[in-house]
Amino acid sequence: MADKKPVNHIRLTSHPDGDAVSIRWGEADPTRRGPVVATLTEPAHRNVIGTHAGSYAVYRALAVAAGMLPQDHRADLKNTSPAAQIGPHPSWSNPDRIVSLDPWGAIAPQAFSAQAEQGIDFRPTIAVTRAHINLPELRDAVMAGRLKPDGDLLTANGDIKVVKAAVDPVWHLPGIAKRFGMTENALRRGLFEQTGGMFPELITRPDLHVFLPPIGGLTLYAFGDINSVSNKDIPLAVRVHDECNGSDVFGSDICTCRPYLAHGIEECVRTAQAGGAGVIVYLRKEGRALGEVTKFLVYNARKRQEGGDSAATYFQRTECVAGVQDMRFQELMPDVLHWLGITRIHRFVSMSDMKHDAIVRSGIEILERVPIPEELVPADAKVEMEAKKAAGYFTKGPVADATALTQVKGRGLDV
Amino acid sequence: MADKKPVNHIRLTSHPDGDAVSIRWGEADPTRRGPVVATLTEPAHRNVIGTHAGSYAVYRALAVAAGMLPQDHRADLKNTSPAAQIGPHPSWSNPDRIVSLDPWGAIAPQAFSAQAEQGIDFRPTIAVTRAHINLPELRDAVMAGRLKPDGDLLTANGDIKVVKAAVDPVWHLPGIAKRFGMTENALRRGLFEQTGGMFPELITRPDLHVFLPPIGGLTLYAFGDINSVSNKDIPLAVRVHDECNGSDVFGSDICTCRPYLAHGIEECVRTAQAGGAGVIVYLRKEGRALGEVTKFLVYNARKRQEGGDSAATYFQRTECVAGVQDMRFQELMPDVLHWLGITRIHRFVSMSDMKHDAIVRSGIEILERVPIPEELVPADAKVEMEAKKAAGYFTKGPVADATALTQVKGRGLDV
Repeated sequence: MADKKPVNHIRLTSHPDGDAVSIRWGEADPTRRGPVVATLTEPAHRNVIGTHAGSYAVYRALAVAAGMLPQDHRADLKNTSPAAQIGPHPSWSNPDRIVSLDPWGAIAPQAFSAQAEQGIDFRPTIAVTRAHINLPELRDAVMAGRLKPDGDLLTANGDIKVVKAAVDPVWHLPGIAKRFGMTENALRRGLFEQTGGMFPELITRPDLHVFLPPIGGLTLYAFGDINSVSNKDIPLAVRVHDECNGSDVFGSDICTCRPYLAHGIEECVRTAQAGGAGVIVYLRKEGRALGEVTKFLVYNARKRQEGGDSAATYFQRTECVAGVQDMRFQELMPDVLHWLGITRIHRFVSMSDMKHDAIVRSGIEILERVPIPEELVPADAKVEMEAKKAAGYFTKGPVADATALTQVKGRGLDV
Repeated sequence: MADKKPVNHIRLTSHPDGDAVSIRWGEADPTRRGPVVATLTEPAHRNVIGTHAGSYAVYRALAVAAGMLPQDHRADLKNTSPAAQIGPHPSWSNPDRIVSLDPWGAIAPQAFSAQAEQGIDFRPTIAVTRAHINLPELRDAVMAGRLKPDGDLLTANGDIKVVKAAVDPVWHLPGIAKRFGMTENALRRGLFEQTGGMFPELITRPDLHVFLPPIGGLTLYAFGDINSVSNKDIPLAVRVHDECNGSDVFGSDICTCRPYLAHGIEECVRTAQAGGAGVIVYLRKEGRALGEVTKFLVYNARKRQEGGDSAATYFQRTECVAGVQDMRFQELMPDVLHWLGITRIHRFVSMSDMKHDAIVRSGIEILERVPIPEELVPADAKVEMEAKKAAGYFTKGPVADATALTQVKGRGLDV
């Protein structure tokens, strides 16, 4: 049986051999910075731990194993270059400013053409395209007269023109460690041991400082002139949105995610129409990066607890199941804003103190915070909303005290 | 400097030591089947490769490394048990029928109470809850009279009651290998080597047959009585939907994803109201499991190619960039339907021949296929729609020939 074949000729980990292409993270000159090389066809060229496409790397591996995809396939990148130019911005050459994505990721084939000519196989970790989007809530905004079609950015049928970019995670381990105040060694050990042994190269290859983690990336949508977002004198609206599939796609009424996202897009369109610009960032951090299984377990625990679902115990139920209230690591989130060269946000469409504080601490000014309009909060989402405001979320209205929080109740599970 | 500490006392891989809890995949009796144990606090108890929560495992590791989460945290699962009972079904005891999720994953704490009493730390890989959802498109269906509120399943304001379940991936490697007609050894090697060395235990621990891959899972939404879905005489509508964030959330007009999803929910509600049931399965396989970066690169290549975006070259552009047209592995998708005990689908709301064929080959009957209504296809999505129909997608209408395909054109990139 084939399963009994000896396996000891498999190379479990690679070793430094001098052929790897250097990466000098934060170097302004791309000829010195060097590309992220994750190719598996020339292992000697690799200068990272992991492979491309975040968690989709596993599907690629399965495709090769199943004989669907030749393992030496090279992407034909003809006609794929960014549909809008982004950067370089001064932030790109600060090694501590951007640590969780590769600022050169969209223009790698152009910026590192010398290495491409040498036959090095590398590929973009960011793709920038243009699209038309159309959301029912934005059509409603047009119908209600809150938005006026201009025939270009926004048409009468609600079509909105955007530039959008998909961004895969690229972690510079020294910078990630610094961001969290730990040593690079502690970070590497934690990532290796606490994933059950994923990527021994985290331990055995301290010379490799870039890691492509198998996690979801982010998408950004820009409204108006994307080049104006780095001009601090031009009004900019921003919403940073963490994925919530149950609301964003299916319209669950237990939270405010999709209504707030739609409101954020409306603010972006309005700001762009007035000569400014807008940016929505969508990050794959389902259920506060705890995942949807934990999220649904917590929903059950909230709704079945003694006394019923209550704003007073909202965070405790997550902590019982998950051990923490939140795993989103907002400390990494501002990287995408710095990639765009943003230095000032005029209207920040979020009530999250964690997001606000992370952005401000990273050196971006926030002039105004825009809460979700009261009428957009679904009935069963009041538990979350009042709990979050009491915990420090931004609001212009009153904040419930401990007694009042116990009065804010959600629906039962079987209603 | 702390980074220079010797690291050679780290255990890179574990070794069989006799304490691991057995998993007998496909065993009908849960006391013999045994739980999936991925705990890191008692490594000797582990009986899988990897850890919980799919790709969110990396965030958990980061939380431990950052000192936010005690590494020995145990989930308090009080009140988290499923809000609706699903199974056991006969399919659960066929080791080949379900290979990519753990059928006992939702009721693990109950089914494996003996192991829990022994102090084994394991947790659910599936969570089942109840929710109310509300989508603008479904409200429109009520307004237009296509759906009639019944005050229970569907209210006048468009609220819909559902049972929903989040399912993390759990791969039984022998079964996965068999599904793709390869040896388990070839699968293990491919997954290890082609991810750049993720999980050496795939190679070094042939005694561990269960793998928790760091990929996204799935969510299912059930409409009507979830217990009736396994009764082949009760009408059942099903849509199996692969994630498309750009359309599902943002309403991009280049594809039919969200409109078809909304139509699928409408069919589910209608079928449930008529005494049947409906199931929507939502799988995290963005961009045909190639990821969104590749997807956006392909969009650019499609729209910039000589002659413009065309149905005649629709699939070629993906293949140029990715090496394959598709990596979704529909062969694994029917597992969730078997988990629910489904044996017959009366109305299958999908035109995909790949999905249809995978379901039928897995032993589930499909009586009728429901294409997307023509009026729901966005203008720029006709390229995709005609290309897919020509490639074998189900349609009741005409199929374009090679010449006609060249006439179906999409918008340019900068329009």
